[in-house]
Amino acid sequence: MPRIDALVAQLGGELVGDDNVEVRRVASLEQAGEGDLAFLANPKFIEQLKASHASAFIVRPAQRDVVSDRPLILTPDPYLYFARASQFFNPPPPVLPGVHPRATVRCTVPHTVAIEAGAVVEEGAVIGDGVSIGANSYVGRGTRIGRGTRIYPNVTIYADCIVGENCIVHAGAVIGSDGFGFAREPSGAWVKIPQIGRVVIGNDVEIGSNTSIDRGALEDTVIADGVKLDNQIQIAHNVQLGEHTAIAGSTGIAGSAQIGARCMLGGQAGIVGHLSIADDVVISARTMITKSIREPGVYTGGLPQQTHAEWAKNFAHLRHLDALANKIRLLEQRLNEQEKTKEKP
Amino acid sequence: MPRIDALVAQLGGELVGDDNVEVRRVASLEQAGEGDLAFLANPKFIEQLKASHASAFIVRPAQRDVVSDRPLILTPDPYLYFARASQFFNPPPPVLPGVHPRATVRCTVPHTVAIEAGAVVEEGAVIGDGVSIGANSYVGRGTRIGRGTRIYPNVTIYADCIVGENCIVHAGAVIGSDGFGFAREPSGAWVKIPQIGRVVIGNDVEIGSNTSIDRGALEDTVIADGVKLDNQIQIAHNVQLGEHTAIAGSTGIAGSAQIGARCMLGGQAGIVGHLSIADDVVISARTMITKSIREPGVYTGGLPQQTHAEWAKNFAHLRHLDALANKIRLLEQRLNEQEKTKEKP
Amino acid sequence: MPRIDALVAQLGGELVGDDNVEVRRVASLEQAGEGDLAFLANPKFIEQLKASHASAFIVRPAQRDVVSDRPLILTPDPYLYFARASQFFNPPPPVLPGVHPRATVRCTVPHTVAIEAGAVVEEGAVIGDGVSIGANSYVGRGTRIGRGTRIYPNVTIYADCIVGENCIVHAGAVIGSDGFGFAREPSGAWVKIPQIGRVVIGNDVEIGSNTSIDRGALEDTVIADGVKLDNQIQIAHNVQLGEHTAIAGSTGIAGSAQIGARCMLGGQAGIVGHLSIADDVVISARTMITKSIREPGVYTGGLPQQTHAEWAKNFAHLRHLDALANKIRLLEQRLNEQEKTKEKP
Repeated sequence: MPRIDALVAQLGGELVGDDNVEVRRVASLEQAGEGDLAFLANPKFIEQLKASHASAFIVRPAQRDVVSDRPLILTPDPYLYFARASQFFNPPPPVLPGVHPRATVRCTVPHTVAIEAGAVVEEGAVIGDGVSIGANSYVGRGTRIGRGTRIYPNVTIYADCIVGENCIVHAGAVIGSDGFGFAREPSGAWVKIPQIGRVVIGNDVEIGSNTSIDRGALEDTVIADGVKLDNQIQIAHNVQLGEHTAIAGSTGIAGSAQIGARCMLGGQAGIVGHLSIADDVVISARTMITKSIREPGVYTGGLPQQTHAEWAKNFAHLRHLDALANKIRLLEQRLNEQEKTKEKP
Repeated sequence: MPRIDALVAQLGGELVGDDNVEVRRVASLEQAGEGDLAFLANPKFIEQLKASHASAFIVRPAQRDVVSDRPLILTPDPYLYFARASQFFNPPPPVLPGVHPRATVRCTVPHTVAIEAGAVVEEGAVIGDGVSIGANSYVGRGTRIGRGTRIYPNVTIYADCIVGENCIVHAGAVIGSDGFGFAREPSGAWVKIPQIGRVVIGNDVEIGSNTSIDRGALEDTVIADGVKLDNQIQIAHNVQLGEHTAIAGSTGIAGSAQIGARCMLGGQAGIVGHLSIADDVVISARTMITKSIREPGVYTGGLPQQTHAEWAKNFAHLRHLDALANKIRLLEQRLNEQEKTKEKP
Repeated sequence: MPRIDALVAQLGGELVGDDNVEVRRVASLEQAGEGDLAFLANPKFIEQLKASHASAFIVRPAQRDVVSDRPLILTPDPYLYFARASQFFNPPPPVLPGVHPRATVRCTVPHTVAIEAGAVVEEGAVIGDGVSIGANSYVGRGTRIGRGTRIYPNVTIYADCIVGENCIVHAGAVIGSDGFGFAREPSGAWVKIPQIGRVVIGNDVEIGSNTSIDRGALEDTVIADGVKLDNQIQIAHNVQLGEHTAIAGSTGIAGSAQIGARCMLGGQAGIVGHLSIADDVVISARTMITKSIREPGVYTGGLPQQTHAEWAKNFAHLRHLDALANKIRLLEQRLNEQEKTKEKP
């Protein structure tokens, strides 16, 4: 069990109190016990901290006196420190190099790579050092996977795509499927437009389970460094996502939308195609963006729940808001009329 | 072909009429023919029943005289009886025990288990009696699958999860992928918080195709007994779903939401994180829940469709409801003013 | 590199100018260079055309004089022509017939079929000429796949389904999983209704990545010829989709909904169960359809985004629209009252 001073030696921060205490994992204030390191991100939980059984705490410098019987790590951002401490205690399982005899690998790969049973890696694929490819995953012809990237089982990456370094791709994700592009015949029948662009993904990107990223129609779909995508997300062809943008589950981004850097999209959000979203924009859960956004800020468009009876009563009017607005205009006119009449004696 | 009295002997209910009639399957009133058993759940379809070519009917005791030329099974809940009768006629295909030579199994499994071609079961996994694991599915290290559970092809279950007994997991489902948890550096870059909780799933749970259930961040994601999840659902980390709760397709539940027992969520619903929903709550399709719900009942928040022209006319006002409300307030003041003046002679 | 006259000989249209020019691919006006064929669908981009470096252009007959230094192909629908030209330059990769030694095929298949490593095709499946089945995909017992259909990796098609000719099924799609059908016991527990219908898919259908199509409960789920489904779509049991209907990503169609021919559904749309939608209906992105639609036209129900502050101000009233409407009614009464009093001298 590592001592807390070893942790601080590696991660930084100021250690206050017994540097001898052993800690073996992170935990929440409520669940923490002997050997656990908990954190206080929000001063309103000070009482929970005092009642916690953790062996040590990560707190802001202002809380340096919060308890004296257990060691504290002082740091300006306890939640960020907690993330790093959790990485310290929970390193990703080591990649055990080797190509499983039941993997089908049609290209040369470095000795440091792990390719699991049932995985298929096509001709011309370029696999970086230390990459792991999970069971029954597929890497298409000519696709490049940067070093250190981890691909979980049952992932599909189509031909001629690029995935950067140190990415994580969760199970069931699909990268490089055809964008939804068709021209229409006069009969109504659709003529497929071959999707000849690629998907180009930067470094340090995480892609959630069962998320889809379509390849570009003519140019590429581009996911910049540090982007984090949750599960069940749909990224259409030619979308561009800027650096460190994070998108929560079940969101859909329509074709050719350009989203800036450091944006945060809530769950079930939707972005209409061909829009442009500035850097540092926050979009609330379930919000549909139908116009480009030029300014950073928080944008919202969700509908609050009600009891069904209240909803039925109120939403009936929603379909007739224009009539309601007209009634108000008419009332104003009549009142203007009256007031005029009165003024004229 | 089984006789109807054999069915009633097994499933209960009162048989009225010829106990000799042979029935071989269930069908709807409209589609039923010779050898079919149909049901009447709603008395408003009595005429369809009379016109139906079914060989026998499941009806409520009140309908015991609805027809006299064909046998009736009387039961208080014909739809429930129909479900059981359909199970009687359509038992799940038998599990043919055996580990396919192309399966990769790194643990000991009971002789009663069926593991199909391409499936991978990692070290330390514990597989119960009669479990079937479909082609190219993956069961991670240390994961436990309870007896009688059926896993369809291309399912991924990560390490250290628990799936109970007699569950059904449909193709493409992912259980145990990492929750979406990150801390943010001042630069905007995200630091991954290792997701060290598990997914713990009870007995008799059904999980639809391409549904994702993330593992907990520190504690577990918990799905209680009897929960039914449709397709394309996103269950984030640390969610708790109570017994017999049923969730329709494309719904998303954000992190740490707690949903009670026997709830029903319509399709494309969304639950914001860290909320608590009481037992026996019904949430209409497409409703977003942004506040905890303490009382059973039906909750709604969807938007009715209109023709595009009507929508454009009405929804323009939606963006200016506050101005509209202000106009009304102003009108009230002016009217108050007038009425006061009038009273003063 | 093909000459433009060879292209026109195959695809039709009137060639104006140098028939000698070589073109090797299609590109957008902006990106096009030497050897590229670009198109002008909308006359408002004429200036971009003039500035483009493309070697040739596809334009409407009215634009026959737009440039004289490069050849033009005149056609009434340049976008449709562009689609066909792109198919000319980018034919699908040839299917290399053969059953990979690591495929598990339990039925007889034609010599023209390609079945990749890890694919499993069950007994009684019927595979047409020229079909390709991607790595680790699964075709269930008795399922029929029409000739020329391409199935990408990690697709699951359950037993007893039909997929027509020349279809494309993208990675992670699931066809034939159980519909979400249960009866409820008085305790709240759910009793599964066996889903004994099939999925029947016509010819020339494209199915996006990670899309789910459930089998019918008693009858079939039916997808007609020429339907195009994007990614992450949920099609519930017993749904019927008419010919050439196209559905964008993340949309959900609830059970037994019937959608006509040549409909277009925007992304994240939702159709409530048991509805009927006429032919030639267009449903805007994010719109929920709660009532049957009998007339062709465009239907909309989405919510516009606002800044969070404006949204908070305006949407507070949404929950109280009925009270607002009542206030207006009251104002009208009071004003009527006043006007009456005034008239009476």
